[in-house]
Amino acid sequence: MLAEGSRPARAGRRARRGAAGADRTDGPGQNPHLQVPYITRAIPTYDLLGEGALDRIEAGMDRILSEIGIEFRDDPTTVDLFRVAGGKVTEVSRTVWNIKFEPGMIRDLVKTAPERFTQHARNPANSVEIGGDAMVFAPSYGSPFVMDLDNGRRYGTIADFENLVKLGQSSPWLHHSGGTICEPTDIAVNKRHLDMVYAHMRYSDRPFLGSITAPERAEDSIEMCRILFGSDFVDSHCVIMGNFNTTSPLVLDGVTTQAITAYARAGQGSIHVPFLLGGAVAPLTMAGAIAQCLAESMTACALTQLVRPGAPVVLGGFLSSMALRTGSPTFGTPEPALGSLVMGQMARRFKLPLRCAGNFATSKMPDGQAMQQAMMSMMSAVQGGANFILHSAGFLDGLLSMSYEKFVMDCDMCGALHAYLNGIAVDDETLGIDALAEQGPGEHLFGTAHTLRHYKAAYWDSALNDDQPYETWSEQGGADSAIRANRRWKELLANYQPPPMAEDTDLALKDFIARKKTSMLDAWY
Amino acid sequence: MLAEGSRPARAGRRARRGAAGADRTDGPGQNPHLQVPYITRAIPTYDLLGEGALDRIEAGMDRILSEIGIEFRDDPTTVDLFRVAGGKVTEVSRTVWNIKFEPGMIRDLVKTAPERFTQHARNPANSVEIGGDAMVFAPSYGSPFVMDLDNGRRYGTIADFENLVKLGQSSPWLHHSGGTICEPTDIAVNKRHLDMVYAHMRYSDRPFLGSITAPERAEDSIEMCRILFGSDFVDSHCVIMGNFNTTSPLVLDGVTTQAITAYARAGQGSIHVPFLLGGAVAPLTMAGAIAQCLAESMTACALTQLVRPGAPVVLGGFLSSMALRTGSPTFGTPEPALGSLVMGQMARRFKLPLRCAGNFATSKMPDGQAMQQAMMSMMSAVQGGANFILHSAGFLDGLLSMSYEKFVMDCDMCGALHAYLNGIAVDDETLGIDALAEQGPGEHLFGTAHTLRHYKAAYWDSALNDDQPYETWSEQGGADSAIRANRRWKELLANYQPPPMAEDTDLALKDFIARKKTSMLDAWY
Repeated sequence: MLAEGSRPARAGRRARRGAAGADRTDGPGQNPHLQVPYITRAIPTYDLLGEGALDRIEAGMDRILSEIGIEFRDDPTTVDLFRVAGGKVTEVSRTVWNIKFEPGMIRDLVKTAPERFTQHARNPANSVEIGGDAMVFAPSYGSPFVMDLDNGRRYGTIADFENLVKLGQSSPWLHHSGGTICEPTDIAVNKRHLDMVYAHMRYSDRPFLGSITAPERAEDSIEMCRILFGSDFVDSHCVIMGNFNTTSPLVLDGVTTQAITAYARAGQGSIHVPFLLGGAVAPLTMAGAIAQCLAESMTACALTQLVRPGAPVVLGGFLSSMALRTGSPTFGTPEPALGSLVMGQMARRFKLPLRCAGNFATSKMPDGQAMQQAMMSMMSAVQGGANFILHSAGFLDGLLSMSYEKFVMDCDMCGALHAYLNGIAVDDETLGIDALAEQGPGEHLFGTAHTLRHYKAAYWDSALNDDQPYETWSEQGGADSAIRANRRWKELLANYQPPPMAEDTDLALKDFIARKKTSMLDAWY
Repeated sequence: MLAEGSRPARAGRRARRGAAGADRTDGPGQNPHLQVPYITRAIPTYDLLGEGALDRIEAGMDRILSEIGIEFRDDPTTVDLFRVAGGKVTEVSRTVWNIKFEPGMIRDLVKTAPERFTQHARNPANSVEIGGDAMVFAPSYGSPFVMDLDNGRRYGTIADFENLVKLGQSSPWLHHSGGTICEPTDIAVNKRHLDMVYAHMRYSDRPFLGSITAPERAEDSIEMCRILFGSDFVDSHCVIMGNFNTTSPLVLDGVTTQAITAYARAGQGSIHVPFLLGGAVAPLTMAGAIAQCLAESMTACALTQLVRPGAPVVLGGFLSSMALRTGSPTFGTPEPALGSLVMGQMARRFKLPLRCAGNFATSKMPDGQAMQQAMMSMMSAVQGGANFILHSAGFLDGLLSMSYEKFVMDCDMCGALHAYLNGIAVDDETLGIDALAEQGPGEHLFGTAHTLRHYKAAYWDSALNDDQPYETWSEQGGADSAIRANRRWKELLANYQPPPMAEDTDLALKDFIARKKTSMLDAWY
């Protein structure tokens, strides 16, 4: 294990479960030396723009905020908070207000937010850090459809949702259970949040996201955390987060601001992500999309600090492009990948954690297009220093579908990125001059002492890629990676074991859900 | 075309053929605003290591060169050149010498090499710059097999070779015709170089690589260039390059040094690429593999400068990994991707052009595994600032097979990288505050003046990806990207038109080949 010992100390804390027994005999894809509750990035960020260009982008954000303003709807309480803080409020109608902010004002308001915070998991070994050089991978979020190679595309159900939570929990390369992994469309809209939060709590022991679709559903999500973690703990620790979209361009509606308020008031985390489809709801030049993204996300972040200074908050951006012949949104394309790198630079300038990019793909199949697009997008997230990477697994069909196969393919890719983010150690041991000197020119190194010291952890060991010679691969049926992934997720579900939960906690959660469900009629909107 | 006009001047010269008529009506995948004879990188390099770590790697290289030395075989002339230059020669046997070099000596010898040079094409509009911020994509090189979805894997033939030259010529996203795109195994080993060089000359009008498998085949390649370009032009311009592998670890055999000498003596270019499979012929810690790579490649580069100071030369590295359970080589993995970034840093330190990485893949199919691996590897090449990227198209099956489908998939990815390498322009026009101000909050931007000014060139427009909605894609047959690529290469070959060539030149080349072929018996080794 000298390879590991000689790495810089910041290359990552070792997970408790993985610290012992790093050995190639553990079976493919285990890579115990790489298993961590969250990644500590040991490579520098990829900084695309110079300070002058970043200044111009920040000035663009300030021009949007001071000259055009943000529109607020149906939430006079939030409008009052911003008015008192110095925003220039114009009443557009009885339920709509435009607020303009002097240059620098929003950035100042955000200064009370932590640069880095902990989101606690019910298994303390799985708590994650969000911010700084920490990096957290979470599954994709929000698809109405699911797909797999056997049954094609269909609407998601709670059974799919539970399966996907289990698949996430089964992967050592995700750190967070995510939120709406797929929409469980077989449950009423006003009740499905209860089943989703329960599934995360019961089938995973990692952190997760709560509901944001209505203030009362946000409150329910937090209340369930009080049952799981205890009220006192919840009041002083972040145990849940909400992932919010602005209504681009430049609108924050009342449902969103009230749900943001619910999370912030409870001291819980929130993520603020404009979903910017260039040419539709944002300029189709990337600099403008970034400036707008910052204006919207920073305003939402500022609201949390007005509600409760110090509430954990995450700057966000979901930059996407269009196929301009057809008007279809496209994902995993080059321009948004560059934009994600710049979002990383701006987040560090503002000293905020960042959510950006993910394993995006436009493809409708877990094929070459899908994985090429996913890798380009995901590389931008990890190189840009994003801290919370939602959509790390399963994203297909422009986010309309959650793919079982791509979920496990993406998890394997996330594993490879653990190795990537570990960087290169340069010292006498890794330079290995003795390895070459032992036999001298022209002789292979298979048996050298250096090779024997390092072979156990030298390279990323994939659980899914086929590295065999063509002949062996062909004799075994010549399956492509999608077919192998199909077999893999079925194996993982067959072998899944739920993490332990105290029976009284489980009963209390079920009781809460039952009472909530009987308290209201089903609503399907 | 304001988007383009507002980009920084260094964002790339526009190709003559592409300057007019950038319009979405040109058909998908054309992207005329991105077409260039070679890329001028408008984004910064991704610098992984600090100066201290780079110093340690250079010191490692110097320790290898001064303490272990490089072994030379069967070429006393080359040994004498290094002896006179100050190398400490030890005779190992009558045909084998070990030469040790004082720290700094090899780096000093390389200082006469140009930091950047032009390789001329027979169509002057297609000449490429190699070095600095220029970047050239060339097809994959050296596979004995070819494969496609219709006929599976089989040995390559000259018909395949010609097809692949034509496919390369058909893509706007490659800049160079490459070399041994596949081995034409139906032609004798001692004659196939003539047919390969002819195919590049006849079916492409871009630059290409010549033979390196024997000194006389190198001479033939250069002589054919004298017919094509004229002897005087060849003596004073680089029109061909040889791509050389060292015999790792730490050996340069006589066939290689003599062929290197042939290119350098003629003032032609050469590329020096250790193929380092970690654990087999190099340390399996990346720092050590890089130090060894530099020791081997820099020594070969130094030879060219002893033969002819100022001869164009390219530092090279092909870093790869192993599946340590099986001993199989693996490609497109995370550790070599990091190594490529460091190779870029070292090339800039040594002021040499760099060949590194490419569209590597271990997969045996043009599937998700293949394209995920390819993108990780290729991103490292372009982010690391590699100048000549061989293996940009078609690499599959760990380089054993050239895939027709992956060739066109990779070409499309290379197009996306043109957009990526163009970077993000940040100015008043691209910030587009007016685009948001025109309609204000809550209103889409489809019809704004800013959108209309930019939509023609805003985003990379793929010729191969399917960006349609699921329903449309499904109604059209639901083909995955490999199947679409299969259709695409057949269309391209059906529509291929050879570039014009003067009849007397063509006849002179054919006459040279005929005379050479009749002058010797077939040899199959």
